Amino acid sequence: MPALRYELIKTCAKSGARLGRVHTPHGTIETPAFMPVGTQATVKGMTPEELKEVGAEIILSNTYHLFLRPGHELVREAGGLHGFMHWDRPILTDSGGFQVFSLSKIRKIKEEGVTFQSHIDGSKKFLSPEASIGVQNALGADIIMSFDECAPYPCDYAYAKRSMEMTTRWAKRGQIAHARPDDQALFGIVQGSTYKELRVESAKQLVDLDLPGYSIGGLSVGEPGEIMNDILEHTIPHLPKDKPRYLMGVGSPDYLIDGALRGVDMFDCVLPTRIGRNGTIFTANGRIIVRDAKYARDFTPLDPACDCYVCRNYTRGYIRHLFKTGELLGLRLATWHNLHFLLSLMKQVRQAIREDDLPGFRERFFRQYGYIE
Amino acid sequence: MPALRYELIKTCAKSGARLGRVHTPHGTIETPAFMPVGTQATVKGMTPEELKEVGAEIILSNTYHLFLRPGHELVREAGGLHGFMHWDRPILTDSGGFQVFSLSKIRKIKEEGVTFQSHIDGSKKFLSPEASIGVQNALGADIIMSFDECAPYPCDYAYAKRSMEMTTRWAKRGQIAHARPDDQALFGIVQGSTYKELRVESAKQLVDLDLPGYSIGGLSVGEPGEIMNDILEHTIPHLPKDKPRYLMGVGSPDYLIDGALRGVDMFDCVLPTRIGRNGTIFTANGRIIVRDAKYARDFTPLDPACDCYVCRNYTRGYIRHLFKTGELLGLRLATWHNLHFLLSLMKQVRQAIREDDLPGFRERFFRQYGYIE
Repeated sequence: MPALRYELIKTCAKSGARLGRVHTPHGTIETPAFMPVGTQATVKGMTPEELKEVGAEIILSNTYHLFLRPGHELVREAGGLHGFMHWDRPILTDSGGFQVFSLSKIRKIKEEGVTFQSHIDGSKKFLSPEASIGVQNALGADIIMSFDECAPYPCDYAYAKRSMEMTTRWAKRGQIAHARPDDQALFGIVQGSTYKELRVESAKQLVDLDLPGYSIGGLSVGEPGEIMNDILEHTIPHLPKDKPRYLMGVGSPDYLIDGALRGVDMFDCVLPTRIGRNGTIFTANGRIIVRDAKYARDFTPLDPACDCYVCRNYTRGYIRHLFKTGELLGLRLATWHNLHFLLSLMKQVRQAIREDDLPGFRERFFRQYGYIE
Repeated sequence: MPALRYELIKTCAKSGARLGRVHTPHGTIETPAFMPVGTQATVKGMTPEELKEVGAEIILSNTYHLFLRPGHELVREAGGLHGFMHWDRPILTDSGGFQVFSLSKIRKIKEEGVTFQSHIDGSKKFLSPEASIGVQNALGADIIMSFDECAPYPCDYAYAKRSMEMTTRWAKRGQIAHARPDDQALFGIVQGSTYKELRVESAKQLVDLDLPGYSIGGLSVGEPGEIMNDILEHTIPHLPKDKPRYLMGVGSPDYLIDGALRGVDMFDCVLPTRIGRNGTIFTANGRIIVRDAKYARDFTPLDPACDCYVCRNYTRGYIRHLFKTGELLGLRLATWHNLHFLLSLMKQVRQAIREDDLPGFRERFFRQYGYIE
């Protein structure tokens, strides 16, 4: 029995958006879904119970970080990531590819794999397609990623082509190395930078491998939003309808809605948690910076339209005080609300698809949020 | 109607310990009680709901800190401390006296009051007995403290005597200045350093003021534990039986039990939260430092004898990982468990008094904890 099954419930009559369910060994995810990021086996500042309360059905964790600390063998001994971190719902791990290129000093990229320096202690480390899958087999996430090279932006055509082709070869090697296909669904990652023909070629090559799902990587790395949407429109039609599509590293409200409109099923991003810890808050009327002096005597909720635990019980003035005095609770409350905001947004997106009106929802949301006048 | 009523339930047949209840406008506290410290209108890292879950019936907050940030007038506008921080149970505020002497560069102590530098921005500030009560009237805690001078340890007799006598005069001024005696119970603070005759004199002078409760200050400031216990034995008989007695700044398990044995009803200390954030954990068998390498693969709970949320769901190995990677959740879980440990200890102390055997409980607890061989 395969580790993952995608169930298509319906497609929006007015867009490419689709409502579905992803069934995994640890439960079912309603899609389109946003996945909070728990880099080091914890979504910063949140307990698993709180993640459930804000509506998280799946979280993402990072192979690169866990490979370095505490080490995947230790996590395996602890009963895998689920047991280690006390989270019993689905988990997705990335391959470590993106972090090797973004966080560490690269020593050498070869066909065999990548030798790099740990960003923690500078020690020499090696990850290959086989090693990445081996680490992910030890971590035990429900959904795992093929090792890929995430090309930088901008990137010339020749480099992007070589890189994309190597990523396909790495996907094949990972598929062969994968030791737990019945427990863990291996996704391939479509690359090809901003070149549509490379994206199409990448999608076709990976679809030939008949993997249980497909990720779209190398976007939201600095390119304008229109390029990202354009690439999605040219890539997604080449992905199978009966498998989930995951757009990596995307988490701003506009990108989530625009991705869903084009048929994306899954998203992840550190944005809500990272900006939250910095005192930046999502509201129905756009972002606010709650540290600002103007909120000192504002005894209304972070987002008056929100019904989350934070907005029901605390005020902007109090949360500003927590940030100004460096109190941990400030980070917690901001993170909590921001995650609730995005997960609630995804619920609204799913409802809009159910009602065949995601474009109408987009228009209303964008106008209130301030994306459009 | 007075703001506070102390109800004596029973006295331990084998010690001076007493079981009681303190009734306040925001609810009742079972005593002997430990009060977690929420210095800046938050117990670091904990929500009010979590404080209730670990069993906190009252918390303490700091006048000095809130006077400086965000300012007591802002807190008053927010509905007082209870409304500001979303805590609907009793609160006690200290007078700011201790912090003026321990945290700020003192400019001048005069009979009138104390001019000092803010530890935040170095600005010049003034607190007097009247000003401290004014700030506390704005904060709105159920129990408030008279402004006192906390003499250093060691301290010569002449200084200790002058200081204690000024503290009594300040208590009288505070009592006159107190604007909300029906909502807030003002405690006097017994001083007198390590000199028994000064302690007795201080107690008598304050008892003459007929205040609703009495604090014992200036202990646990560096003197040996035997001195503290000796002072308690000589002070408490001079305090009225029908009013609560609060030993300030005490929170280690041995001091809590030894204080309760001598008739103390209330305690507070930053110890459980502060050492928790440093990775030091209370267990039935003594403290452990969970950051230590030996716990990396220890997949047992922080304290195998504990049934708190943290011990039911997480392991030492995981919590060590959180500390080693600087994750917020580590601070939260350690704080949570340590507070649960002390509040559960106080529950056991109350049960032992009920059973007329606090000395027996002390013996068993001290032996298991490792205080005695």
